[in-house]
Amino acid sequence: MAVKKDTRWKQLDAILNEVRSYYNAIGKMEFDMQCCAPPEGMEPAGQDMAVLGTHVHKLTHSKKYVNLLTSLHEDPTGLDEVQKRAIDVMWFHYQRSKNQTPKFAFEMSKAFNTAYGKWLEAKQTSDFSIFRDSLEDVVKWTRKSIELMDEQPSTLYNGCLDGFERGGSEKQLDAFFAALKKRIVPLIKKIQKEGAPVREDFLNRPCPVAEQEQCSRWVLEKECLRQSALVLMTTEHPFTTSFGPHDVRVTTHYYEDAFLSSIFSTLHEGGHALFMQNEPEEFVKNHNDGNMSNAMHECISRFYENIIGRSRAFIHFIYPELCRISPSVMDGVSEEELYRGINIARPSLIRTEADELTYSLHILIRYEIEKELINGRMKVDEVPAAWNAKYKEYLGVDVPDDAHGCLQDVHWTMSFGYFPSYALGNAYGAQILNTMQKEFDVFGDVEKGDLSKVLAWLKENVFACAGMLDPDAWIKKITGESLNVKYYLDYLEKKYSEIYKLK
Amino acid sequence: MAVKKDTRWKQLDAILNEVRSYYNAIGKMEFDMQCCAPPEGMEPAGQDMAVLGTHVHKLTHSKKYVNLLTSLHEDPTGLDEVQKRAIDVMWFHYQRSKNQTPKFAFEMSKAFNTAYGKWLEAKQTSDFSIFRDSLEDVVKWTRKSIELMDEQPSTLYNGCLDGFERGGSEKQLDAFFAALKKRIVPLIKKIQKEGAPVREDFLNRPCPVAEQEQCSRWVLEKECLRQSALVLMTTEHPFTTSFGPHDVRVTTHYYEDAFLSSIFSTLHEGGHALFMQNEPEEFVKNHNDGNMSNAMHECISRFYENIIGRSRAFIHFIYPELCRISPSVMDGVSEEELYRGINIARPSLIRTEADELTYSLHILIRYEIEKELINGRMKVDEVPAAWNAKYKEYLGVDVPDDAHGCLQDVHWTMSFGYFPSYALGNAYGAQILNTMQKEFDVFGDVEKGDLSKVLAWLKENVFACAGMLDPDAWIKKITGESLNVKYYLDYLEKKYSEIYKLK
Repeated sequence: MAVKKDTRWKQLDAILNEVRSYYNAIGKMEFDMQCCAPPEGMEPAGQDMAVLGTHVHKLTHSKKYVNLLTSLHEDPTGLDEVQKRAIDVMWFHYQRSKNQTPKFAFEMSKAFNTAYGKWLEAKQTSDFSIFRDSLEDVVKWTRKSIELMDEQPSTLYNGCLDGFERGGSEKQLDAFFAALKKRIVPLIKKIQKEGAPVREDFLNRPCPVAEQEQCSRWVLEKECLRQSALVLMTTEHPFTTSFGPHDVRVTTHYYEDAFLSSIFSTLHEGGHALFMQNEPEEFVKNHNDGNMSNAMHECISRFYENIIGRSRAFIHFIYPELCRISPSVMDGVSEEELYRGINIARPSLIRTEADELTYSLHILIRYEIEKELINGRMKVDEVPAAWNAKYKEYLGVDVPDDAHGCLQDVHWTMSFGYFPSYALGNAYGAQILNTMQKEFDVFGDVEKGDLSKVLAWLKENVFACAGMLDPDAWIKKITGESLNVKYYLDYLEKKYSEIYKLK
Repeated sequence: MAVKKDTRWKQLDAILNEVRSYYNAIGKMEFDMQCCAPPEGMEPAGQDMAVLGTHVHKLTHSKKYVNLLTSLHEDPTGLDEVQKRAIDVMWFHYQRSKNQTPKFAFEMSKAFNTAYGKWLEAKQTSDFSIFRDSLEDVVKWTRKSIELMDEQPSTLYNGCLDGFERGGSEKQLDAFFAALKKRIVPLIKKIQKEGAPVREDFLNRPCPVAEQEQCSRWVLEKECLRQSALVLMTTEHPFTTSFGPHDVRVTTHYYEDAFLSSIFSTLHEGGHALFMQNEPEEFVKNHNDGNMSNAMHECISRFYENIIGRSRAFIHFIYPELCRISPSVMDGVSEEELYRGINIARPSLIRTEADELTYSLHILIRYEIEKELINGRMKVDEVPAAWNAKYKEYLGVDVPDDAHGCLQDVHWTMSFGYFPSYALGNAYGAQILNTMQKEFDVFGDVEKGDLSKVLAWLKENVFACAGMLDPDAWIKKITGESLNVKYYLDYLEKKYSEIYKLK
């Protein structure tokens, strides 16, 4: 099919607008599954989503689409930079999926969509056997989808990683995690041996859900989120999703006996939401929105959760408000005790509740297991035992049951290769903070509860180029160098040495 | 296109399964709009829904679909009775929409989908001008869609009515409402003149939302709804929707100063939900589910809300539970006072809060206005004044603002011709009760809180034939005669004469 040059983008744009509506529909059905649907509704919903997914597959693999995309990829005359990047990313994804037949896409989508309901039931009853078959299916389909690609990655798991972080590989991550382990493990041991005790009796005081929700809403406002384009709901596993910058959804989970959990979870998801609400308008207009890598996204969410949220400055700011909203929980707790309490460094069972110091070890465990699963060196039945053994080995904790073990995270109902993004995000965050602090007094603002300059800086320096660049080029543009794990490790060492009064 | 007889149904079934998935997707987006979406998300969501709606339009107007449908309609050889009925209903709807182009369907769908957000904003600020243009659009598209039909109805509004109640007409409704007015208006006057006073001070005692929600959940259980296929949420305007019998959603609205409102609203929506959960399996399998008329649906919802819910027997049953859940609201209120209080007959402003006696007059007002709008004899700008004048004339009340006037109901963002279904449903309900009571002691069961036999009877005698028959044939099959408004008027007269101790 011959395509006229001057109307190519316009024609593609029409298809992409239609595709966007379908993605929004599927996204809302996913959101519905997690926030609204009754148990019996899960499986049929998965079927419906697969029908729509197949239509998207058809649209994005049609002759017309492929011809337009190929033509624009080979000769981008007439496109601006944003459109060029959008084409580049579309081309990349098309290469990854072009050999999948509609039937393949439908069956894969169905397997993934039904996995969520099974996982939820398994987690709620702490019964791995309920999730087992779904997990096997998701692994199988993930492997198959990589095997179908023209250019075969050196390992199947590398094929997964590349989908989340272009240019990412096991080799890079092995080195990355080794560097983390080398300094974090001794630091944890030193804290356990010599660290000054941290008061923690108040951390599990009962706190009514209504008070926690009030805190969460307040925190989202302070994060400078546009409230008219924001929704806060509750789910088993907190997440953020969006249907364009005008409709961003944050969810959290309230535990009556862990009132701080929802605050930091909300700060984290709020970070994602800020990224989603504040991408450049021309990205949205030109189908280049959402094209940042996952580690870039997690960098921002964990920046707000930890680097800002768990800072002395932020605690100084929220302390009076917490005392006002939850006087019984805060009774007799000083600002210093709150700060040290929320930064307690202690090997634990649950990733999302982990402190900054031990967090990366939780990721390392998941990384090692999913790598083996996808590369075909571990069977799904071996997952619970492998999980428990690694928690014992790296964190020294005993896993009491699978709900607190390998069933805790939702991720393996959707994808493999995502977990490393969290750890990479942490490291990016510390490196970006280092640059940001050279330009203005970040924590001076945080202490006053004014996060507007932080957001403005991120918009200009981080969000505006995130969708335009691959991870390495992106962090270089922001900070002047490639990912350097030293910033993150220095940050951790300084922070925890001070908290634990280490010599 | 030639179609092989023996595979016709199978081929159509494949298309209809796809269509069903799209309807479920659109339905969930509508549900999302009402239960979750932030203000800025409304308009873009309407656009997305229109894209999916256009695809459904294409599927149900494709050559293949039309050929299969026409062939099966002309020669139903090989179809069972349920499939024949499904084809008949599909044919009917196809006749109504077959001349609509995809562009027409898209534009119409967009106008309807954006109307909801405008209405909500208008209602919340009591500013009719915000909704005005959308209302005009919805009227315009409704009129256009009727004008496009091959067989023109005698009036455009008759074309609307036929879509909800096959065979329904202004002529039938004019006579129906005249009969209601003739006996209800004098009864209201008599009550106002001679009725024994009803205690009402407790009706607006403040009641926390949490207590009301507890009551609502309890009521839904008592109604015999399958909880694993049910969801209860809150919205501005209560409604029920379903995505098959395995996923039924009920919403309600809690007013802190009107604790009984949510109970009866929940009973009402629960009635709809029962119908949705309990259609025969072969209807669902053969694409004949949801083919009951709207008055049939409202008959069941108002049966549970009023005939059961506001009966002396049901009040006897729930009285102790209400006292347990909300002791402060029920403090010093006797069972008799509760019964009379919830049945207080008094002309009022809000349809959904109206008592059984004045309810039909609320419907009459909407009927008269929408008839004039669709038939082109009233302009949208005249609606607020017409509304207020009719409330003064028929109910003797002054409308303070449009939020409590013509903006109170969501219906005109979606359709015209629906309102009469409520009044028809009331009348069907009393006629069905009369038959049911001949077969077992209905209120004996209700008094014990056992609604299982009521549901079993409805399933066998009402739900099983609702999707198979037009309204007149349906009520004849159940009760042995056509709609006879006498049962309803006798029921009202007996009930209210006793409550108000009329001579």
